[in-house]
Amino acid sequence: MSNIHAVVLNCSLKPSNETSNTQALIDESLKIFEKEKVSYEIVRLVDYNIKYGITDDAGEGDEWPEIFNKVKAADILIIGTPLWLREKSSIAALAIERLYGGSSLTNEKGQSIYYNKVGGTVITGNEDGAKNAAKSILYALSHVGFTVPPNVDPYWVGDAGPGDSYIEAGGDEHEFTQNNIETMSYNLIHFARLLKEHPIPAEGNTME
Amino acid sequence: MSNIHAVVLNCSLKPSNETSNTQALIDESLKIFEKEKVSYEIVRLVDYNIKYGITDDAGEGDEWPEIFNKVKAADILIIGTPLWLREKSSIAALAIERLYGGSSLTNEKGQSIYYNKVGGTVITGNEDGAKNAAKSILYALSHVGFTVPPNVDPYWVGDAGPGDSYIEAGGDEHEFTQNNIETMSYNLIHFARLLKEHPIPAEGNTME
Amino acid sequence: MSNIHAVVLNCSLKPSNETSNTQALIDESLKIFEKEKVSYEIVRLVDYNIKYGITDDAGEGDEWPEIFNKVKAADILIIGTPLWLREKSSIAALAIERLYGGSSLTNEKGQSIYYNKVGGTVITGNEDGAKNAAKSILYALSHVGFTVPPNVDPYWVGDAGPGDSYIEAGGDEHEFTQNNIETMSYNLIHFARLLKEHPIPAEGNTME
Amino acid sequence: MSNIHAVVLNCSLKPSNETSNTQALIDESLKIFEKEKVSYEIVRLVDYNIKYGITDDAGEGDEWPEIFNKVKAADILIIGTPLWLREKSSIAALAIERLYGGSSLTNEKGQSIYYNKVGGTVITGNEDGAKNAAKSILYALSHVGFTVPPNVDPYWVGDAGPGDSYIEAGGDEHEFTQNNIETMSYNLIHFARLLKEHPIPAEGNTME
Repeated sequence: MSNIHAVVLNCSLKPSNETSNTQALIDESLKIFEKEKVSYEIVRLVDYNIKYGITDDAGEGDEWPEIFNKVKAADILIIGTPLWLREKSSIAALAIERLYGGSSLTNEKGQSIYYNKVGGTVITGNEDGAKNAAKSILYALSHVGFTVPPNVDPYWVGDAGPGDSYIEAGGDEHEFTQNNIETMSYNLIHFARLLKEHPIPAEGNTME
Repeated sequence: MSNIHAVVLNCSLKPSNETSNTQALIDESLKIFEKEKVSYEIVRLVDYNIKYGITDDAGEGDEWPEIFNKVKAADILIIGTPLWLREKSSIAALAIERLYGGSSLTNEKGQSIYYNKVGGTVITGNEDGAKNAAKSILYALSHVGFTVPPNVDPYWVGDAGPGDSYIEAGGDEHEFTQNNIETMSYNLIHFARLLKEHPIPAEGNTME
Repeated sequence: MSNIHAVVLNCSLKPSNETSNTQALIDESLKIFEKEKVSYEIVRLVDYNIKYGITDDAGEGDEWPEIFNKVKAADILIIGTPLWLREKSSIAALAIERLYGGSSLTNEKGQSIYYNKVGGTVITGNEDGAKNAAKSILYALSHVGFTVPPNVDPYWVGDAGPGDSYIEAGGDEHEFTQNNIETMSYNLIHFARLLKEHPIPAEGNTME
Repeated sequence: MSNIHAVVLNCSLKPSNETSNTQALIDESLKIFEKEKVSYEIVRLVDYNIKYGITDDAGEGDEWPEIFNKVKAADILIIGTPLWLREKSSIAALAIERLYGGSSLTNEKGQSIYYNKVGGTVITGNEDGAKNAAKSILYALSHVGFTVPPNVDPYWVGDAGPGDSYIEAGGDEHEFTQNNIETMSYNLIHFARLLKEHPIPAEGNTME
């Protein structure tokens, strides 16, 4: 069976020397990747100097091209984000702009460079908005060329209003969220394998 | 002080002979209206035959005009809705289409008929999506001519995944939600009184 | 090659004896289905008595079960909708509630009944909101079990504000929209064929 | 009549030495402010080093506090943004996070610091998504304490797909957009004056 590689963009507003609840939920998915021999890499975007602009390379000092190379080499892309005011983080918005900036690049068949890649999202917040953020992220991925398998939007949120976040609340024992993490992880793997063996035919979907 | 009148459109999918969690949360707001001598009327939309179409009157058999007359007589409009798949109900969508269908009607000054009316929303669900539904409803109200005071989006949801709804979960003791109900109710009243005494000047905002 | 069958739910607010701009855009997709020997059926939802409620069968008088049977037999589901106030129609919202109401049903492997089905959306409006409606529809399809291939959101809108609709504006000669219709149609077919020959493995994604 | 002051946050991805279509549309509003003796200041956010984090002051090197002081002194706040993939820009998302980070601050009456301030949004893109971005921005403003008058979401977009932007397309002669700019500008002024003379009573809406 082909080797599958996953890249996770953690769009936390906190740098990697601080604890990220989103990372804690992502880690549950990575356990399954390990069990299934899927290699992976995690990128904490806030650690990088990512410039603004709808381009795959914003020039001097822009560290997105390094991240973009990882995305190009990946079969699976997961965007992990916290929720603020029911939305994905501004860094997730930035990542999507930069992915969009590379969407006119093509593979050797003339399709979007994101064809045959599979996307999902992992979301944590303490109150509300996970599905709002998920729809925004998954739609963007689909719109630029990723395939979106069923049920790739696991999340954890607490009840209405401020409260404990995922780690403090013991979210790793929340059965609904854990089931959804498992479903996402397997569906990403199933589709990555499927598309690796049977790439999308270059008919009706090339960019001229 | 002027008399203020509120109309609440409860967009539950259940008819009024069934218990509505959304109504239970609305009722918390109505207690404040009573205390402040604001008269009100509740309309359970699913009890009516509301036809499809972007019009204020869809003709024979359409019962929207009766509801629309109540809206026209109101100073405050609250749209209450349950959440399904993180969205307002289809009946809330229908109500907004019908309100939109009346948005080219004008008051005696040539402004939208909804000018000087104040809008808010009350939302219940058992998992996620309240702010997504609130932004959709409040934006629609603002776009057709209502004024949206600050903090008019009280809601209750449980944590991630299926679970108890507002009533079973004892949501009426949830401090965050109760505070937000109070804030919405008072801000709707404050602005309704303000606009009754000082209507929006007809300058730059009339429809020709 | 396996036979592929598509069902199109046209969520126009106008019954089938009136001209639907959305249908005109859908028809461009159907031309490709015909060329590729994909059979299809179009359902104008407003012609039916579809009851409210999160269920696959709302009882006496409910005509959704007849539609739901068509969906169950389809490999491809397209939801077509007009835009009103930048949103999908209330009938599209109703269709999604009813699809959601059937989402706990399973196939013979214990997966959601929508697994191995492929979803897309076709949207027309005269001003703005197509991507907003597309993300809402595609997210809902993905969340209940459909697969969302890349680039399955063709649309036509005019520029800001009221104006001609798709047919009057000669939208069938709008190259961007036509290209997107072609891409959607082929990607739906490619994925429907792929999943028919290689169904999603029942690992990590069954409902207990 | 009281002096009214407006602050415009232009969330273009381009620095102020490059032409911003969003600024061109904002300028139409500023002409009305000048006519009505409303003072204003424009801030091109991308010119500043705004750090990530849900706080009003992210510490050393963070230039948000300087901008936040301008917001605190304003009666009117306009968020201007371009559209990318039907969404507000990532810089607009960042601005909203930072505004949210200041939302627990209170005025002398104990209300949110944003009470008695009025908000609107101005949006340009070349294809689609203006109302989606508007609802996100206006909801966020309302949720943190701003008042949202009716019809404060003027925008310009071209028809489906890539094409000329506002300036090239002669958007300043687009009657619909110009009417909406006028309505927004006057409604912001009307409400700013109203709330300056009749502030929101501190009843039911203070933060303890």
